[in-house]
Amino acid sequence: MPVDAVIPFKPKNPKTRLSCVMDQEEREAFARAMLSDVIGAVCAGGCAPRLICTAPFAYPDAPVTVDPAGLNESLDRALASAGGPLLIIMADLPLADGAAIARMIATPADIAIMPGRGGGTNAIFVRDPSRYHVDYYGASFLKHAAIAADAGLSCEVVDSFRLHTDVDEKEDLVEVLIHGTGAARRYLESLGFALSIEKGRVGVERRTHKETF
Amino acid sequence: MPVDAVIPFKPKNPKTRLSCVMDQEEREAFARAMLSDVIGAVCAGGCAPRLICTAPFAYPDAPVTVDPAGLNESLDRALASAGGPLLIIMADLPLADGAAIARMIATPADIAIMPGRGGGTNAIFVRDPSRYHVDYYGASFLKHAAIAADAGLSCEVVDSFRLHTDVDEKEDLVEVLIHGTGAARRYLESLGFALSIEKGRVGVERRTHKETF
Repeated sequence: MPVDAVIPFKPKNPKTRLSCVMDQEEREAFARAMLSDVIGAVCAGGCAPRLICTAPFAYPDAPVTVDPAGLNESLDRALASAGGPLLIIMADLPLADGAAIARMIATPADIAIMPGRGGGTNAIFVRDPSRYHVDYYGASFLKHAAIAADAGLSCEVVDSFRLHTDVDEKEDLVEVLIHGTGAARRYLESLGFALSIEKGRVGVERRTHKETF
Repeated sequence: MPVDAVIPFKPKNPKTRLSCVMDQEEREAFARAMLSDVIGAVCAGGCAPRLICTAPFAYPDAPVTVDPAGLNESLDRALASAGGPLLIIMADLPLADGAAIARMIATPADIAIMPGRGGGTNAIFVRDPSRYHVDYYGASFLKHAAIAADAGLSCEVVDSFRLHTDVDEKEDLVEVLIHGTGAARRYLESLGFALSIEKGRVGVERRTHKETF
């Protein structure tokens, strides 16, 4: 039996910190490309994906629940109604691969947490969802570790840069262009994004611009 | 036989991008604390550390070679004179642990590369050093992968956020305060660094200041 993997997804006006280099339509397409990479990794890692979306959205190969509530509320509902182990994973991890997902759900601990950069939480695997709840935003990694400790649950911190790398800002696109192999990288390249090196630092530039950029 | 691990180290005026929050003496002490964490991880992972320093420096438990040449030149010399497999690892990886090092040197490939954030290279394991050379700076991860390909060497990209997280800038200190367990974290705390959360973003603040900050 594959492990259920819940992926929260915001189809409308996502990734606003990329507004400096992409318009809204492009950001929505880029978010869908990243989601497609995450879904591919989740399936390759032995999980069955389903989406919780803030607005109506259709995805070919995964069931979709629309829940306009906040992230914590909708994920707590998913935990409460889960019939077995649950993976919660964010949709903005375009470097994710099946090996990292498989390592996560193979944890010997009760909980496996994948920290994001800057104190966030990119994924949580919970063996017994009835004993856990989430608390996203801010230093959520520390909160999630504390929730596990308070519930007497053992916790593994997973060690993967592929799942650690969430994409929010222009600088993060460097990682997609270097390490990505899927839809998100292809979409960036189709928009004209390429690596640039200035004074020894690696960045990205957009070589073809819409009029607005 | 433990694998030799070469660690380049700059004892004088290192980590200048941290000058906004630490004076030179503090940056030198912080660099030594990070080095100590890396050496601990390298030993725990089954390697024997030795240092290549740009200036005279004494370290209690590791042999030191002083080589004022550039990074590439001194590492190529180390590769050329190696008598067996060699790990090259940077000194600014305070989240490194033995498990990640052990995974690296257990690669089934000829080469294992640990990319740093932003296209850099944080560690390279080379099974046959006579067939490899390095090319640091800029997008060195891509260059190192290309050098392996050109030499007909198979290459694994290691998946570890602990080895991916190199510490160069103030924002990187967040990771040390959240995930560090060793000397670097203790040193930051002794200087008064603590996490701060503003508008949902996690940063660091220095609660006790020298007059210069």
